[in-house]
Amino acid sequence: MIQQRAVQTRRRVLRAGAAEFARRGYAATTLTHITRTAGVTMGAITFHFASKRALADAVCAQGRRITREAVAPGGGGAGRGLQAVVDITHALVVLLGEDDLVRAASRLGGEAGDRNGWYGAWLPHLHAACVRADREGALRAGVDPATVTVLAVGLVAAAETAALQAACAQAGTTTAAQLTRAWRALLGAVAPPDGVPGLSP
Amino acid sequence: MIQQRAVQTRRRVLRAGAAEFARRGYAATTLTHITRTAGVTMGAITFHFASKRALADAVCAQGRRITREAVAPGGGGAGRGLQAVVDITHALVVLLGEDDLVRAASRLGGEAGDRNGWYGAWLPHLHAACVRADREGALRAGVDPATVTVLAVGLVAAAETAALQAACAQAGTTTAAQLTRAWRALLGAVAPPDGVPGLSP
Repeated sequence: MIQQRAVQTRRRVLRAGAAEFARRGYAATTLTHITRTAGVTMGAITFHFASKRALADAVCAQGRRITREAVAPGGGGAGRGLQAVVDITHALVVLLGEDDLVRAASRLGGEAGDRNGWYGAWLPHLHAACVRADREGALRAGVDPATVTVLAVGLVAAAETAALQAACAQAGTTTAAQLTRAWRALLGAVAPPDGVPGLSP
Repeated sequence: MIQQRAVQTRRRVLRAGAAEFARRGYAATTLTHITRTAGVTMGAITFHFASKRALADAVCAQGRRITREAVAPGGGGAGRGLQAVVDITHALVVLLGEDDLVRAASRLGGEAGDRNGWYGAWLPHLHAACVRADREGALRAGVDPATVTVLAVGLVAAAETAALQAACAQAGTTTAAQLTRAWRALLGAVAPPDGVPGLSP
């Protein structure tokens, strides 16, 4: 019973930490902010996490795990060819929009300039899907898997920037809808003409 | 004479601050790092900048100014139609690769989640160039200026991520060369067929 309550408290602290780190970044977040958001005492936080750094690391690890599961073969990236590439970018944009753990992992990874941070959780899967698409003959002549990877990374990176979110809000659209429009334009450039009709951007 | 030396010292501190902030991010950079890189005393720094925050703000302002001048009409974005859009992304990728003030402005803006940060220095010019391209009939039917903006923002955002730089290094290419390949693929998607030959990606 006590054990179960401790698990719930740990989870609540992790979620509250994710929300604060995603909103304020690492430097501007204090454990006091997190006690308020989580509705727990400082003692409850320090019982589970030795420091702000330890909590941030746990949040990032969890955010990366969620991301990896969403895009791994068997998850959102299970489809064939280019459709898997498109699906992975959509899965990432949904996670960035909805999951504080993923947003925090993305933001804190960027702040730390960490090459093996959040990007490391999905870039290998995305690149593998681009290589698979190439092997399946799903790429137009003259387009290589590295270029498709860059274009797809670009769409995710654009969705990560607050600038794009502000522009979408101003234009009365959503990041997800904008992603679909971008893929609609892009697919004609990277897929052979007879490959486009079967794809859902 | 003393006046001139003060100007030189201020500039040296600004450059050293930019190098450190670009490499370590805001939180991990100390004024002591900057004294070492600049080869000046702590007193020389605090004479010109009241705090680390004040120095970071001055670095960002300078990085944004350099960026704005490089992409403004009359700068890199002076061309017509889609070529101006392509040129602006190349100018930004060169600055990100070569200028510590710009790298620091990009990194610190991202860390602060600042919507009017570094992106604010070039996004309006890029968007204006996309709208101009549309008015000039340089966009394929069904492609709107907002979508071209997203695709172009995506290429710059991808170039900003350490992940892409690592991938390019591994593939033995440069970010600039990769940008050209991405545009080569993209132009066929966004320009009308008779518009592509005149463009230099």
